[in-house]
Amino acid sequence: MISFVTLLDYLGTFAFAISGIRLASMKRFDWFGAYVVGLVTAIGGGTIRDVLLDATPFWMIQPSYLIWTGIALLFVILFSKYLIRLNNTFFMFDTIGLALFVVVGFEKTLSFGFPYWVAVMMGTATGAAGGVIRDILINEEPLIFRKEIYAMACVIGGLVYALFDFMGFDTTFTQIAAAIGVMATRIIAVKYHICLPVLSSDEDIEKASKDK
Amino acid sequence: MISFVTLLDYLGTFAFAISGIRLASMKRFDWFGAYVVGLVTAIGGGTIRDVLLDATPFWMIQPSYLIWTGIALLFVILFSKYLIRLNNTFFMFDTIGLALFVVVGFEKTLSFGFPYWVAVMMGTATGAAGGVIRDILINEEPLIFRKEIYAMACVIGGLVYALFDFMGFDTTFTQIAAAIGVMATRIIAVKYHICLPVLSSDEDIEKASKDK
Amino acid sequence: MISFVTLLDYLGTFAFAISGIRLASMKRFDWFGAYVVGLVTAIGGGTIRDVLLDATPFWMIQPSYLIWTGIALLFVILFSKYLIRLNNTFFMFDTIGLALFVVVGFEKTLSFGFPYWVAVMMGTATGAAGGVIRDILINEEPLIFRKEIYAMACVIGGLVYALFDFMGFDTTFTQIAAAIGVMATRIIAVKYHICLPVLSSDEDIEKASKDK
Repeated sequence: MISFVTLLDYLGTFAFAISGIRLASMKRFDWFGAYVVGLVTAIGGGTIRDVLLDATPFWMIQPSYLIWTGIALLFVILFSKYLIRLNNTFFMFDTIGLALFVVVGFEKTLSFGFPYWVAVMMGTATGAAGGVIRDILINEEPLIFRKEIYAMACVIGGLVYALFDFMGFDTTFTQIAAAIGVMATRIIAVKYHICLPVLSSDEDIEKASKDK
Repeated sequence: MISFVTLLDYLGTFAFAISGIRLASMKRFDWFGAYVVGLVTAIGGGTIRDVLLDATPFWMIQPSYLIWTGIALLFVILFSKYLIRLNNTFFMFDTIGLALFVVVGFEKTLSFGFPYWVAVMMGTATGAAGGVIRDILINEEPLIFRKEIYAMACVIGGLVYALFDFMGFDTTFTQIAAAIGVMATRIIAVKYHICLPVLSSDEDIEKASKDK
Repeated sequence: MISFVTLLDYLGTFAFAISGIRLASMKRFDWFGAYVVGLVTAIGGGTIRDVLLDATPFWMIQPSYLIWTGIALLFVILFSKYLIRLNNTFFMFDTIGLALFVVVGFEKTLSFGFPYWVAVMMGTATGAAGGVIRDILINEEPLIFRKEIYAMACVIGGLVYALFDFMGFDTTFTQIAAAIGVMATRIIAVKYHICLPVLSSDEDIEKASKDK
């Protein structure tokens, strides 16, 4: 029997891959291209983490990530009509996957002997960098730099992990608290349309002063 | 005297670099920019492979890849007028290089103790990822995700290698068979305009249902 | 007390981060996005160098780079109105940082036992690759491939280092000479609008021959 954590990992991989494949389909990529974009969305963040930690990339040790991306591709090919109706389901899977990826990335970084602040960065990279590479591959500005508190949810989850771990709480409890931190932040941000402020550029200011 | 494989390696590097430099020239990059794009096209795939395998990147050990990219730049500067007429020649060089890169990538991955499925991925990355980085650098959607069976030829070559190796064939024979697998797939795909199916997006479906 | 080199490192990090954050603000990225783009501009080149050298990325060992990027973000948020007037100051900081990064990258590569030509490449990557990743993230064609002798200044600084080191000069003297090589090349190139030639593309030539 597979463990509960493995099940969440599969769910998250599936949801991340779906998000990549759907964006690839809007760009009229072929099946291979869509598969690669889906795969990179699912494993890109963890791969960057593992390369920086000098660990063997996690997906080179067991093939489940490739298989779940394949299932995601098949799913999009067969059921593309019904996907929009499933948006809320995918959002939940994606949020669960995000929380798990952050916790896994945080934990792995600590186990390599790095301090909390590196673990917060690596947890965030594990959760959010796959989406950035996805957007680079489809030649769009990365979504997470402009919309929703997606990466910030990872940072907050990482800070919760660091705080609870520092205070000496039990590991399982700490991990669950961090995961809830990620999920709660994201769900609240989406529900109440909370965004980070946008940087105003020099140009805006010049325009504004001309209007006076 | 240099070996036959080294000669093919030079040919492939030259052809990959030419493809990068020509695309860079359409974007009006300067000589340095064109050189970098050419170099990345030639060595990008193998570099990703070596970073993931935790090996020293192959081009850091001997400078021939830098030199051949320099020759390719000089060639484009001097003979840009005649390049279009040489398209078929470049296509052959490029296909030979692709086949060699796939075989080299597959073999190296096996020698690091990874299973066949990782080797298929690394062979494909060695052959096709350089072109993806090239397209990212010139700010275009990666060509291989939409056109021609380019990356699929790498996958097929890798599968041939895995099959023949698994059946216990001689290494040299296996390598030649895999290389022929890559070249035959690509040449047939280009000659008969064989493409992978394109993913239809949610938008298309919405439009189609409105038209009814 | 911090050393002089550390001070230059802070200056350079600050200037590189500012350049990333300002470009991100023109794309209307939010604060988090701007921070990431600023950070990647400052640490991207050195990270690529360290991954290729198989070293632990330098910024994972001490947090000053994250902190200086944070200060740069705060600076842009608070003083965005006055930034244009500071362009010359930033140019000087940026040029000092570039020189330092090239020297540090060159030295580190030599210390890993690689030959001069690898060190020239790594010095250039340390100085110039962060800007390339920045431009990829904001979805623009990399600036250094088309404008100014930016990366070439790194190459020239690296060649100076190699020459002086080969001739047996004192390390400190060699480093200062290389840094001056970078700074002088860049300042002269900007002052006298010196550019590398642009590659003419096949299309231009076709057009030119039609016009006849």
